[in-house]
Amino acid sequence: MDIKNKGGRLTLPGEENFLKETIELMERWKADAIRDADGTELPEEVKDLDATIYTKYFVARGHNDFARENLNECQHFYLMSDRITATEDTLIIDFMSGYFDKQIKPDYDNDPKTWWEVIDRTTGEVVPVKDWEYDTENHTVKLNKAVPYHVYTLNFLAYAIWDPTQMYNYITNDWKGVERDIPFDIRYKKSWEYAKTALTKWLKENPKTDVVRFTTFFYHFTLVFNQLGLEKFVEWFGYTGSVSPEAILEFEKEYGYRLSPEDFVDEGYYNSIFRVPTKKFLDFMEFQQKFVTDRAKVLVDLVHEAGKKAIMFLGDNWIGTEPYGEYFKNIGLDGVAGSVGDGVTLRVISDIEGLEFTEGRFLPYFFPDTFYEGNDPCIEAVDNWTKARRALVRKPLDRIGYGGYPSLAYKFPKFIDYIEKVADEFREIHEKVENGKSYKSAKVAVLNAWGKIRTWMPYVVAHGKRYKLSYSYQGITEALSGMDVDVEFIDFNDIRNGIDESIDVIINAGDAYTAFSGGSEFLDPVVQENLRQFVYDGGGFIGVGEPSAYSKNGTFFQMSDVLGVDKEIGFSQSTNKYFMSEVESHFITKGIDEFDFGEGKDNIYALDEKTEILSYTNDQVNIAARDYGKGRSFYITGLPYSLKNTRLLKRAIHYVAHKEDELNVFYAEDYRVEVLGFTDRPEFAAINNSDELVQTKVYGKNKSFEITLQPSEMKWILED
Amino acid sequence: MDIKNKGGRLTLPGEENFLKETIELMERWKADAIRDADGTELPEEVKDLDATIYTKYFVARGHNDFARENLNECQHFYLMSDRITATEDTLIIDFMSGYFDKQIKPDYDNDPKTWWEVIDRTTGEVVPVKDWEYDTENHTVKLNKAVPYHVYTLNFLAYAIWDPTQMYNYITNDWKGVERDIPFDIRYKKSWEYAKTALTKWLKENPKTDVVRFTTFFYHFTLVFNQLGLEKFVEWFGYTGSVSPEAILEFEKEYGYRLSPEDFVDEGYYNSIFRVPTKKFLDFMEFQQKFVTDRAKVLVDLVHEAGKKAIMFLGDNWIGTEPYGEYFKNIGLDGVAGSVGDGVTLRVISDIEGLEFTEGRFLPYFFPDTFYEGNDPCIEAVDNWTKARRALVRKPLDRIGYGGYPSLAYKFPKFIDYIEKVADEFREIHEKVENGKSYKSAKVAVLNAWGKIRTWMPYVVAHGKRYKLSYSYQGITEALSGMDVDVEFIDFNDIRNGIDESIDVIINAGDAYTAFSGGSEFLDPVVQENLRQFVYDGGGFIGVGEPSAYSKNGTFFQMSDVLGVDKEIGFSQSTNKYFMSEVESHFITKGIDEFDFGEGKDNIYALDEKTEILSYTNDQVNIAARDYGKGRSFYITGLPYSLKNTRLLKRAIHYVAHKEDELNVFYAEDYRVEVLGFTDRPEFAAINNSDELVQTKVYGKNKSFEITLQPSEMKWILED
Repeated sequence: MDIKNKGGRLTLPGEENFLKETIELMERWKADAIRDADGTELPEEVKDLDATIYTKYFVARGHNDFARENLNECQHFYLMSDRITATEDTLIIDFMSGYFDKQIKPDYDNDPKTWWEVIDRTTGEVVPVKDWEYDTENHTVKLNKAVPYHVYTLNFLAYAIWDPTQMYNYITNDWKGVERDIPFDIRYKKSWEYAKTALTKWLKENPKTDVVRFTTFFYHFTLVFNQLGLEKFVEWFGYTGSVSPEAILEFEKEYGYRLSPEDFVDEGYYNSIFRVPTKKFLDFMEFQQKFVTDRAKVLVDLVHEAGKKAIMFLGDNWIGTEPYGEYFKNIGLDGVAGSVGDGVTLRVISDIEGLEFTEGRFLPYFFPDTFYEGNDPCIEAVDNWTKARRALVRKPLDRIGYGGYPSLAYKFPKFIDYIEKVADEFREIHEKVENGKSYKSAKVAVLNAWGKIRTWMPYVVAHGKRYKLSYSYQGITEALSGMDVDVEFIDFNDIRNGIDESIDVIINAGDAYTAFSGGSEFLDPVVQENLRQFVYDGGGFIGVGEPSAYSKNGTFFQMSDVLGVDKEIGFSQSTNKYFMSEVESHFITKGIDEFDFGEGKDNIYALDEKTEILSYTNDQVNIAARDYGKGRSFYITGLPYSLKNTRLLKRAIHYVAHKEDELNVFYAEDYRVEVLGFTDRPEFAAINNSDELVQTKVYGKNKSFEITLQPSEMKWILED
Repeated sequence: MDIKNKGGRLTLPGEENFLKETIELMERWKADAIRDADGTELPEEVKDLDATIYTKYFVARGHNDFARENLNECQHFYLMSDRITATEDTLIIDFMSGYFDKQIKPDYDNDPKTWWEVIDRTTGEVVPVKDWEYDTENHTVKLNKAVPYHVYTLNFLAYAIWDPTQMYNYITNDWKGVERDIPFDIRYKKSWEYAKTALTKWLKENPKTDVVRFTTFFYHFTLVFNQLGLEKFVEWFGYTGSVSPEAILEFEKEYGYRLSPEDFVDEGYYNSIFRVPTKKFLDFMEFQQKFVTDRAKVLVDLVHEAGKKAIMFLGDNWIGTEPYGEYFKNIGLDGVAGSVGDGVTLRVISDIEGLEFTEGRFLPYFFPDTFYEGNDPCIEAVDNWTKARRALVRKPLDRIGYGGYPSLAYKFPKFIDYIEKVADEFREIHEKVENGKSYKSAKVAVLNAWGKIRTWMPYVVAHGKRYKLSYSYQGITEALSGMDVDVEFIDFNDIRNGIDESIDVIINAGDAYTAFSGGSEFLDPVVQENLRQFVYDGGGFIGVGEPSAYSKNGTFFQMSDVLGVDKEIGFSQSTNKYFMSEVESHFITKGIDEFDFGEGKDNIYALDEKTEILSYTNDQVNIAARDYGKGRSFYITGLPYSLKNTRLLKRAIHYVAHKEDELNVFYAEDYRVEVLGFTDRPEFAAINNSDELVQTKVYGKNKSFEITLQPSEMKWILED
């Protein structure tokens, strides 16, 4: 079985009573694989087709007979109660308030006096355990010596008694009679033994399966529901659901110190990706990565021993796998599959190294919410493909696929035609890019407190959801995902250890004090020194929003000297701000007639006349550029995703990298069009990212062409 | 001489060759005093009129023969150089860059190695003095062991060689041939002896002067110009211009510790009113207050010995007098005069205690910029009077006055008529309010890190100028200045020491980390305890902007439990925000159809369903209210001054104070009208604050009346 080179590079979902049409679709779309979906099983007749058969597998859920008998091996959460203000010297904390008792069950088996923590949130101090009692009937904790008018919380250990993804589907689709999946923790010996045995048995029982798709391994990202069964908090990167007394004890042995409940609860922020990570949290992440990858390897080995391939779904129980972490490769996976909503979500998958193949599931799902009479599913398909294609041409997936019920899609012949075209275009792109040497105009590094491990993941809270504080930064990563630049994600140690000389431009973008702007990391003099020297010696620095922000030593943006702008936060209102004049024209904004800063930032001002102001409205600077030694900087107050903002960022990168002369190489004059060029072949592609007809001049390596592109068209041009 | 009760309560400016018309104006406006102005002298014939004669007097400027011979007794500044980034291990700081050499002269007489300080602004550390040298020719400092890519500044001591107010007038009016006033420092013995002798001599030479108007005493508020002679920084409350080596040595003797240059320079923020004041700065303020008031007393005693009255102008060299400080009364002044631009600037003067009289100078000045052919000076006069009158009826000035050239005003008969009417209205208000007991609907305390000493002064940078970060808060003080409430300004010690039981409502308003929201003061558990208990027991709490903000212990607004709202700053984006529904109607917003939040604040959210949301737009809460124990809170994202916002605040005060039932007491249904009521007489006044005709129902103590008010009209109504 050679999946990677089998030909079709496309996976279809299978369905009962749909054999003839499945064969037809396989031929038209050149599908070479068929998969089952959540909640469905492939019929035997489909398994017998000449196709690679993917079958999903759950390791730590969906084995409820075992789980029910071993409830003390359930997975855990560390959770924080509501913040409760004492008004007298006794205080009752009803700590299950706001939690869903079908998901969360307080763990009284592990002594609460050892594993729980009451914190005075007015002082930040832990309340001595002797000063509180717990009540297992009412799920309350009573403080006997509360300080009136202090705010208190309880950090408590709870069992997770329902898998959150299943729960979400269950509640959303109002399922009846379906058993609730109880997640068990393979850190416990019995559970681990069971997991291995169950997989071994399953492999034997599924001889026709070629590819086992793990969904995923052990611990679900943080997803906790409220008392109404609605999402309470969600964090794609959260490790809250991977904790257990055993993990903490094991960690202590390995790292020499004990993690407290508060190390997980983190004031109620649960070590969100927006928090500058603590050393303790990074240690715990590493500890869990080692554990998860070790154990996952054992399961993958079983799959391989059974003569099958093993892939994982990037989602659900992916915690600890960390495809961009240093332990991931140890698992020995053959592939990774994931859902593609845009350029960034595509690159999250396609940039993973060391795999035989990556596979993206495209939209729309063949579900009735899109495939109903009177609706045109092509609209979503075109939009999804056009967004994803920008990124695909820079770093292709090896395979694409679809999900849902093919019988639904089959009722829309125009859609079937369109996907046939998409599939052909995908295979053409894959072939050319895999076998060519793509042109890159610059190397860009995105700097934040996470770096490589969060490659393509910055600014994300929950997958595919728009957040008010994030979208004005997500435009950067989305723009970069389809830009003709090499992109790296670096952290402050990468700055401290000496900036890689191959980097042309460093981008620092985010809200003040978050992991993305860097917060306290910028107080390290070495960070400041190395960054300034990088720019002074000729590097480019791009700041978005509140880059390098930390109010200290007389400045808010610690890189204000490099950026030439700072933010007035009140203290220097007494200093007159004289620099308000926009430059008449500038390389960066040439041809861009209007700006969208998204949420933007208030009260940005230029330091002096050496700062070039490119946009100034409402008494504040929105865009600025500045020379700094041999280098240059660029500042913009926000950059939500749009084709215009993508063009603005592309021009800014060329400007700060002193590569203005190289702009007209594999470039289109119209901002709606991007170009894929090669350094080793005379062919290039012009890609219309818009749904409009575009006439434009495009530049190849040496020549230019006047071309017309149909809406969303990708056109190959031979330059000789 | 009995100025307070002389009758007219109005001061005219005098002018040469204008005797007959001056007498006419005195009669029409019932003026009983005549004053000279900056740059003019009263003619003898005017001094002989039956009027109180005011004469300005400068203590520490305008004596240039003395100052020139004693340049080493010049006043000083502590100033910070530009922030300079080192790029190699030597660094030259051109510290006079950006300063105006006609105002600022480096002081090399006092050893720079003792009195100056080089600071590494990357680490915050002071550079050892051995590692730098200074160059008196080029005004530079050279660092010999700079760390490349660190940012450095020099804190240097400089002579102030030109009085900034005179400089401003000189440059603005392009004066020629006028001598520049050199300010000298009466902390030096010779200067002090000179100041006393000069005043004694002057008093003898001015026998017709009845009132000496000090403009003001010794040290000017911070006002520093740049190399182009334009304002570089200005701080109405700055003490930067009162420093000297002698002051620092004296301070050390008295307080037992030495102040460093950085204690004054404060990272370049110069202890701005927006900074939470340090203990050191408060000590220095106290130290200078004791000194200034002691010395001022000596001069005032000389005036009194000469049989004259002494008043001071609230402005210019007012530093250290602090009319709301505890030492002010020691000066023994008879009065304070100041400029009135609106309600707040009026109350700054009229609320000063312990004086025989307060006097406000109203607008417009009789200058050609307003009094030119074709312009109607009444427009500015009506606007100024209407804004000020709101405040005047709550706490009257004892006198009003005008400035400029009366001959100019005389050419506008309609203006002369209007001021005649204003003067009569003023005297009527004064008589009634002084002899009656005004009705107050509540007692409101404005809480910030400054408290009483900055009574009516919060949010001000430079007098009368609008600042982007301030106007959305200044609306609060402006609204209160004319509201029927008692107003106090309290600090965090007033909270720590137990909140005064007479207070109904506490207002905390400002940007995060500033002195106005309180910043680190809110980390004191006692502050949190006492504030919460105050509300829980029935008090009202109003937060505006970023009240109590300090990111710590899981919350941004430390009073979030009281306010029921918090601000998302990124860390808790993973927590779903479900509370978005506005209440259908609410007491506070009843009758107010549109809102103006000024700059507002982003990303405010409600904590739970117990928070009543009164306005929600753009995915954020703008206005909210909440019950908290027996008390209540109100939050609004910004409150720039307007008649509607004044009404909103009035209603909010009644709501949080549980005084909804008392709203219809001395109240008008139309928001443009306010009412002045008395508890001891059956008369009340309805005041139309708008320039529109208003028909409305007004409520007296027990009855209501349908009335019509002309634009700006104030109407007295007898209720019996």
